[in-house]
Amino acid sequence: MAGKNVFYAQSGGVTAVINATACGVIEAARANRRFGKVYAGHNGIIGALREELIDTSKESKKAIAGLRHTPSGAFGSCRYKLASVADNRAQYERLLEVFKAHDIGYFFYNGGGDSQDTANKVAAFSQEVGYPITCIGIPKTVDNDLPITDCCPGFGSVAKYVAVSTFEAGLDVASMAESSTRVFVLEVMGRHAGWIAAAAGLAKDTKDSPPHIILFPEIAFDEAAFLSRVKAVVDKVGYCVVVASEGTHYADGRFLADGGTTDAFGHTQLGGVAPSLVDMIKRAHGYKCHWSVADYLQRAARHIASKTDVEQAYAVGRAAVEFAAAGKNAVLPVIVREKSKPYKWSIGEAPLSRVANVERKMPRSFITRDGYGITAKAYEYLSPLIQGEDYPPYKDGVPAYVRLKNELVKKKLPAFDA
Amino acid sequence: MAGKNVFYAQSGGVTAVINATACGVIEAARANRRFGKVYAGHNGIIGALREELIDTSKESKKAIAGLRHTPSGAFGSCRYKLASVADNRAQYERLLEVFKAHDIGYFFYNGGGDSQDTANKVAAFSQEVGYPITCIGIPKTVDNDLPITDCCPGFGSVAKYVAVSTFEAGLDVASMAESSTRVFVLEVMGRHAGWIAAAAGLAKDTKDSPPHIILFPEIAFDEAAFLSRVKAVVDKVGYCVVVASEGTHYADGRFLADGGTTDAFGHTQLGGVAPSLVDMIKRAHGYKCHWSVADYLQRAARHIASKTDVEQAYAVGRAAVEFAAAGKNAVLPVIVREKSKPYKWSIGEAPLSRVANVERKMPRSFITRDGYGITAKAYEYLSPLIQGEDYPPYKDGVPAYVRLKNELVKKKLPAFDA
Repeated sequence: MAGKNVFYAQSGGVTAVINATACGVIEAARANRRFGKVYAGHNGIIGALREELIDTSKESKKAIAGLRHTPSGAFGSCRYKLASVADNRAQYERLLEVFKAHDIGYFFYNGGGDSQDTANKVAAFSQEVGYPITCIGIPKTVDNDLPITDCCPGFGSVAKYVAVSTFEAGLDVASMAESSTRVFVLEVMGRHAGWIAAAAGLAKDTKDSPPHIILFPEIAFDEAAFLSRVKAVVDKVGYCVVVASEGTHYADGRFLADGGTTDAFGHTQLGGVAPSLVDMIKRAHGYKCHWSVADYLQRAARHIASKTDVEQAYAVGRAAVEFAAAGKNAVLPVIVREKSKPYKWSIGEAPLSRVANVERKMPRSFITRDGYGITAKAYEYLSPLIQGEDYPPYKDGVPAYVRLKNELVKKKLPAFDA
Repeated sequence: MAGKNVFYAQSGGVTAVINATACGVIEAARANRRFGKVYAGHNGIIGALREELIDTSKESKKAIAGLRHTPSGAFGSCRYKLASVADNRAQYERLLEVFKAHDIGYFFYNGGGDSQDTANKVAAFSQEVGYPITCIGIPKTVDNDLPITDCCPGFGSVAKYVAVSTFEAGLDVASMAESSTRVFVLEVMGRHAGWIAAAAGLAKDTKDSPPHIILFPEIAFDEAAFLSRVKAVVDKVGYCVVVASEGTHYADGRFLADGGTTDAFGHTQLGGVAPSLVDMIKRAHGYKCHWSVADYLQRAARHIASKTDVEQAYAVGRAAVEFAAAGKNAVLPVIVREKSKPYKWSIGEAPLSRVANVERKMPRSFITRDGYGITAKAYEYLSPLIQGEDYPPYKDGVPAYVRLKNELVKKKLPAFDA
């Protein structure tokens, strides 16, 4: 007799490898008779509230295997944060109702800090009301800002994209600077933590090679100092490559570019740091500038994913299922660094309560004293995370990413306004 | 006895594969005793005027082979257009003086339409003054806007980058649209011709899949029609992916985003179409939007180069040397399409005079009647150009691109103010 069914949901911004985690979850659950079917939330936790459950048992073995090389969220993800139980008990009751109706005994929540908080609340609430659900978190975030885990699945691939892109664009600028563009600014993600911007530093192979200036959210932006550094670099090297985190801000907290809107988690939607910096530079120095905003391209770039990242993303998916099979609850698998050189990692375990709502920034020791670069310590930390290539198969010149059928399970409950 | 030396120069915006062409030139010239040394212009034609000649014979066989997988211009390129002989005879005289001083009998100019015009003028002038130089053009431009040649080396790789990036970002938006971003706008290069934007259409694998709207410079931008199409797509599909050429402009010729500066060829420096479109969409519909400007990332992206493009770039380099060896002059090798399915190509020949200063736009038959997509005919033309992957080797997670020594030849002439 098959055991209780599994509910798996993707949460928050998707990554190049979150589907590799889904692949790990589904393949491990399929192989263990303790588990029934794996249902995936259509658009994440919203799918559970609306009773929109995708029956992954309808997908072929080949399609599920293809998730390993397919970016974005194959079942849909969402930016949707559950309120506290005190503020919206009805939501938690609804979740359990849906879980009960579909004989779900396991909840795997694949997301960042906010999602781990939600998983933790569901674990506590289900205990409280006497329908205990095994809640296992699975780490995911390009921002690399979760505590305890050495790194976050999703980060290594965006880091590789940013390092490779900075290297390539830097060569371009170098070859044209004599008569054309002097300054190139690349804007990358990272709202409060500079991990992604820091990864650009992996492209630096000589003292004067790009990137020349990295702007971190951890370091207050000083316009005059920045402009004088840009000029000094152009005078010395002939050109200047700047990589700026979207979260770059002044000492008083004002972001350089504030999109003016906020998402469901209350985070300000950012964008436009690169053109703002270019405006400053043109006004001050008159250099010809070019700029790029990588935005979604960076986190969707499965074509240049880090092999290390893909393997870790898959491994945390499998580990979540193994934890559940072993009777664990309210925990998540984390990446443990055993050694940097040569890189060795393993899977560890952490309680959800310790991961929820804690944002890990770059340690000051990872940023050079002047605030514009990364230290050898940061390099040692970051470098293993982008090691290895894991190319998807191609058809007709474009990657053969899988699209699932995503058949919904027949509803059993009245509608609910999520 | 070795023959006359060769002067090779890279011109205009660099590409992911212009160094593959350099590799073809140098390897072919090294293998033929008719040619002496290959000197490369330091920063293109400026290097010839300043007598800054790079001695490529100082580079190892391995380094030259590595050019095949290294993006950007290994010797430096420039945006610098020679005036007409009537307007600046001194420049042409200087060029020939430098060529004479270094026993140069062959001039290979690797660039777009402006550069082919220059090569043609040098050929004529050198005949006129009785020091005939063999001038062979070599096509290069990501814009794909040269006439006669079926496609331009450099284009296939940026096309592949744009198709892959659009596909990946489209999957990202699709998975988040329910509760987050509804519209994503990707800005790509293409000042007057929409070839690069068109390549995004190769990512479309179903009627409703991205990209939903492509904006071409060939089609006048109509704000009201655009905004209503965006809404129609969001209503039907749930989200909308727009790919906009940097040259998108209104019927009266005004660019959507005019950077306000011009380069040495008199072209306006563009940028910022994506944020302009997003502003319009937010104001009209209030959708949450994201946008990306690919800028240099797209033309430097050797990591995702098209194998077809790399092979063609290398082949035109070799062919230029073979043309010169065969006694041809004032011509350039072009790509001839023998067949689309399966794709077959060969190298043809065209006179420089017919290529100089002619800009080839997208035929209207390549753009759908509504102006927002590509036709089956365009697909058939574009698809072969992005076929195949040609990955560079990697070291420590980043591509092992080569850096040359670039040793300059000892000067023999007085300085010249280029």
